Amino acid sequence: MIQRVNSLSVFGLGLIGGSFALVVKTQFPDIKIYGVDQNPDHAKKALELNLIDEIKSSNDIEVLESDLIILATPVNAIKEILPQLLSNISSNSVVLDTGSTKSSICKTVKNHPKRSQFVAAHPIAGTEYSGPEAAFLKLFSGKKNIICEFELCSDQSKKRAKWLFELVNMDNIYMDAESHDKHLAYVSHLSHISSFMLGLTVLNIENDEKNIFNLAGSGFESTVRLAKSSPDMWAPIFQQNKSYLSKALDEYILQLQQFQEQLKTENVEEMKALMQKANEIRKVLE
Amino acid sequence: MIQRVNSLSVFGLGLIGGSFALVVKTQFPDIKIYGVDQNPDHAKKALELNLIDEIKSSNDIEVLESDLIILATPVNAIKEILPQLLSNISSNSVVLDTGSTKSSICKTVKNHPKRSQFVAAHPIAGTEYSGPEAAFLKLFSGKKNIICEFELCSDQSKKRAKWLFELVNMDNIYMDAESHDKHLAYVSHLSHISSFMLGLTVLNIENDEKNIFNLAGSGFESTVRLAKSSPDMWAPIFQQNKSYLSKALDEYILQLQQFQEQLKTENVEEMKALMQKANEIRKVLE
Repeated sequence: MIQRVNSLSVFGLGLIGGSFALVVKTQFPDIKIYGVDQNPDHAKKALELNLIDEIKSSNDIEVLESDLIILATPVNAIKEILPQLLSNISSNSVVLDTGSTKSSICKTVKNHPKRSQFVAAHPIAGTEYSGPEAAFLKLFSGKKNIICEFELCSDQSKKRAKWLFELVNMDNIYMDAESHDKHLAYVSHLSHISSFMLGLTVLNIENDEKNIFNLAGSGFESTVRLAKSSPDMWAPIFQQNKSYLSKALDEYILQLQQFQEQLKTENVEEMKALMQKANEIRKVLE
Repeated sequence: MIQRVNSLSVFGLGLIGGSFALVVKTQFPDIKIYGVDQNPDHAKKALELNLIDEIKSSNDIEVLESDLIILATPVNAIKEILPQLLSNISSNSVVLDTGSTKSSICKTVKNHPKRSQFVAAHPIAGTEYSGPEAAFLKLFSGKKNIICEFELCSDQSKKRAKWLFELVNMDNIYMDAESHDKHLAYVSHLSHISSFMLGLTVLNIENDEKNIFNLAGSGFESTVRLAKSSPDMWAPIFQQNKSYLSKALDEYILQLQQFQEQLKTENVEEMKALMQKANEIRKVLE
């Protein structure tokens, strides 16, 4: 594989940013990696873990002249940082974001004179853990990466983005930002809320936590796994995808109410029919 | 370990019944195991897989004189079979059920003259798969088993039940049937409905299934895992636990609506606060 960049800056040294740094460092030890994080403990930890070579601040010249700059902060910070950063970077640099929302971020720089130096991406990978210690080499491998508005990128931007995602072994999918946000509302954001609220409902009723622990099977654990996710990361995602997500929630709540109606009237056949339909998710997942 | 029984009958040769048969057969090859299943394919398959020694029907003398009879059918069938079976078994036999509801089943035989020959149990173990092929040796190992109304059992019933659950390496917890059903509504039944309805919501909106497959991450997969569960098994569980489950659903829907309200008004701080509270599920699960 050709080495497309000599220097890399990563904003946000958590699970995503840390894992990108780790792969680049492992495969191309010569590439200089700068780390930027507003949390000094995260930055220090990332340095200790050898994910990055140096801690920098967002205005340092080494950062602004990096060949590739990855934004892996929460999406509210991406939206804040991106326009200013794009204005300040050298004409040779490329900025790539990894946020879980795309429409709001893309709109922010729609008319920016350096729009072609920006690549809007969403690598679909993650765990319920966060911070630099959560980073690992195989996080992205074999997963999908969504790129939006790729037609607005310069050739150099396209090449560097493709280089990065090939390096971490992801398959790229291309779509417009609105489609991305609509689909992700259903297959990701909604399931996070369903999980968070399930956790909350059970915690509220079960004051004696020992009982939950004793009685919860692996099914419950699987369903509430996402309730362990980071609020700082997810609240801004929900906010930026408010419209699609609220519509998805409307539909989810309606489904629950319709099922509850069948339950109350003990309409076992209709309950079974709804569950059989839901079983079709097998085909999609397997 | 002392061999407490010489013959065993298993009603329902699926994941649960099949796994009990498998453990008994592996550890005590001399114990004769009879299998009863209304689905002839399941019975044949269980015989082929060596889970059982002989296929029997529910009225066969070998079944009615078995030292231990395990009921591992859907809970509606348990409720139907149990009173009649209890009337017909020999005075030496013990019947044990493994249903995911306990109150309705216990009430059915509350005043039965042979109540002391029945043990109401709920081994908390399972996967989203079903049928005899889903059975495996370690299904129960290290998990919890709930026994209700143990005080109504004869000494012999108690000994045989304890023998079985020690054999499969489960820890017994004792509680009344109403408490069981209430707790399980929250930590098991509700999460199944939340998962079934999430699957349904996403399937309804995403007509092009390819899109879901491409965009769904491991988080979605984890949250909808239970939507693959068997409707024939779960619909009767929901029905028998209607009151507690409907209350749990009320609370879950209310939580979702309250979160949606914060989302619509972009009250990010309150969204974060709710999610932070939900994060406490970590402590319970880990």
